[in-house]
Amino acid sequence: MSSVEELQKKIRQLENELEAEKQKNRQVIRQKISQMSSEVVDSNPYSRLMALKRMGIVDNYEKIRDFAVVVVGVGGVGSVTAEMLARCGIGKLLLFDYDKVELANMNRLFYQPHQSGMCKVEAAEKTLKEINPDVEFETYNYNITTMENFTHFMDRIKQGGLKAGQPVDLVLSCVDNFEARMAINTACNELGQIWIESGVSENAVSGHIQFVIPGETACFGCAPPLVVATKTDEKTLKREGVCAASLPTTMAVVAGFLVQNTLKYLLGFGEVTHYLGYNALQDFFPTMSMKPNETCDDRHCIRRQAEYKKREAAKPKTEKLEVKEEEVVHEDNPFEIELVSETTCEESEAAEGSQIQLAEGLKVAYTVPAPENNSGSGDTVETSGQSLDDLMAQMKSL
Amino acid sequence: MSSVEELQKKIRQLENELEAEKQKNRQVIRQKISQMSSEVVDSNPYSRLMALKRMGIVDNYEKIRDFAVVVVGVGGVGSVTAEMLARCGIGKLLLFDYDKVELANMNRLFYQPHQSGMCKVEAAEKTLKEINPDVEFETYNYNITTMENFTHFMDRIKQGGLKAGQPVDLVLSCVDNFEARMAINTACNELGQIWIESGVSENAVSGHIQFVIPGETACFGCAPPLVVATKTDEKTLKREGVCAASLPTTMAVVAGFLVQNTLKYLLGFGEVTHYLGYNALQDFFPTMSMKPNETCDDRHCIRRQAEYKKREAAKPKTEKLEVKEEEVVHEDNPFEIELVSETTCEESEAAEGSQIQLAEGLKVAYTVPAPENNSGSGDTVETSGQSLDDLMAQMKSL
Repeated sequence: MSSVEELQKKIRQLENELEAEKQKNRQVIRQKISQMSSEVVDSNPYSRLMALKRMGIVDNYEKIRDFAVVVVGVGGVGSVTAEMLARCGIGKLLLFDYDKVELANMNRLFYQPHQSGMCKVEAAEKTLKEINPDVEFETYNYNITTMENFTHFMDRIKQGGLKAGQPVDLVLSCVDNFEARMAINTACNELGQIWIESGVSENAVSGHIQFVIPGETACFGCAPPLVVATKTDEKTLKREGVCAASLPTTMAVVAGFLVQNTLKYLLGFGEVTHYLGYNALQDFFPTMSMKPNETCDDRHCIRRQAEYKKREAAKPKTEKLEVKEEEVVHEDNPFEIELVSETTCEESEAAEGSQIQLAEGLKVAYTVPAPENNSGSGDTVETSGQSLDDLMAQMKSL
Repeated sequence: MSSVEELQKKIRQLENELEAEKQKNRQVIRQKISQMSSEVVDSNPYSRLMALKRMGIVDNYEKIRDFAVVVVGVGGVGSVTAEMLARCGIGKLLLFDYDKVELANMNRLFYQPHQSGMCKVEAAEKTLKEINPDVEFETYNYNITTMENFTHFMDRIKQGGLKAGQPVDLVLSCVDNFEARMAINTACNELGQIWIESGVSENAVSGHIQFVIPGETACFGCAPPLVVATKTDEKTLKREGVCAASLPTTMAVVAGFLVQNTLKYLLGFGEVTHYLGYNALQDFFPTMSMKPNETCDDRHCIRRQAEYKKREAAKPKTEKLEVKEEEVVHEDNPFEIELVSETTCEESEAAEGSQIQLAEGLKVAYTVPAPENNSGSGDTVETSGQSLDDLMAQMKSL
């Protein structure tokens, strides 16, 4: 039996060990900061961002706190997008996803093995709040494409701004399937909400972002989605039970382009790019602009087009001319990219109907089928021997 | 005085508390994986990478485990670079830095507030080991530019490979100052070690990567470093006590380019780009190649050039022709970039001496001063009204 002295020694030892373990768990989370400062001290997390003012890049960086941004999909692109915005000091993030973190996600940035099994939105919010407690969050662990969730999703775009009842400032699409993109497109057309689409190819070596102003630039339904050609063998075997490839590099570059464009749009610096592609194998970066399709299937898109035309017509003539000039694609394009169509005859026909002239290095994800009254005649457009359904299925993983 | 029984109760209580705290600290770190598998299951962290084989992008992805890469500087670009490589399953990382994590770093990806005060290399190693325990690490918390450290740094390049005594496979420069870049350049020229330089501008809106094969492409000492022009007002006030601006977007894009180029080089897919620039304001991406300067100040560069010429001359003629073709800049450049010099007269003189023809959108960080015997005559080259010293000082933060 131990003596009292020995027991007391043991207690002191245990108390010390306990304190040491507690110390480890005491995460040094930084305090909230009520006002952004330009002060150059090690303890100021905003000093390098506020320096953008002194460098003559941004007039009023503090304004970043006034914006609310929706991020739909917090996977390989969306999680890094949300992290960048949080570190930049965005006012509010609204995150939507219904996936769980898995070890199979560890080849991309952001999530860590200890978060396996957690809902992605919950894991993302926890990490991002530790990184920047000044950011407000709303997170929704659901699929936006079901009827009920879609209604709620639209409501949050319309009323989820920083001031209660006000709309958000921008919607970012970081999803990996066609249905979710179409849902975002439908919601944004109906609400007249500006959004940016992003995507990465199934073979992991290309990606793109596309800025959509309903009525002013092509919506996602106006024409087959544009993707970056990778000059790789497209006949590669794709079976059931296989997964798409992905790389942290391509995902981070696309997220970087997406958030850079977001910052340029929200804070008013540089040029907001309408379409920017990334071909990683050859390191080329196609850009282009697309007007909306006057025969778009989405009635809200048609309505937004009419509104845009009315607004343009109402502008004084000199201003209208300036706007016209902005519409010219690549006017100050330093690469002298010419918009020469690479499409085949069949594709050109489809493309003409939807007013697409493709920049070099871009292709449509599928071709538009001929009108129904032609079907059955054996003359349907089948440029690649694949049906539209097959091609749409492929798009799901873009 | 407590009874023995009370003391024993207290001990049991403390032991339970201690176990609970220890449990919290036991991060669910994933087990090591002895062999990379293509199996598509949620628990396989390599499934999306191994899918690059099925997609026809990479022949033998598993080979990634055979490579050792040095990352010098684990700040805004280097930490993300190391994270990407760790998540890709690189065999070994050797990290060099002498900075501490500060809250002022939180506007870029990777570090978190609770790591404030830790050495960057130590914090990075801890996080990266949790993310991927399969990666081997060597970390050095020192400045590579001091004499003693430089000798040790060179030794690690020469002998720090996966097999003891073998050289590493690639050196990545992610530093933020001119001296450290020159130290890496000197070491790599002497050892004939291939490396990639990276940099981000002080105003945060441009960056670049440059692939250096000693003797074959221009080294960092061959000519003034190339940087991407941002078309911003360069007369912006820069005083003592101010800091450079930085953005997580630009840093992640540059890290993405750097690691993408690394993967292409190590695993043999796509085209390894010699110089890739990023202008975030206009979204343009200049590329070019530069031959080494036959009058380079670095005697090891001159030696490597002679070796390269000898190797080329020894090749059978057909093979030599192929190599020649590869040397043609931008042969399959989809943007048809012409290498038209934008330099001024004075710059052209300097540039001619160092064989630079600048691609559009690129500029040299400073101009080469006239030979010493001209100094004092009042004819020294001063294109921007700034001395070489001033310009070198500016370079420190590139």
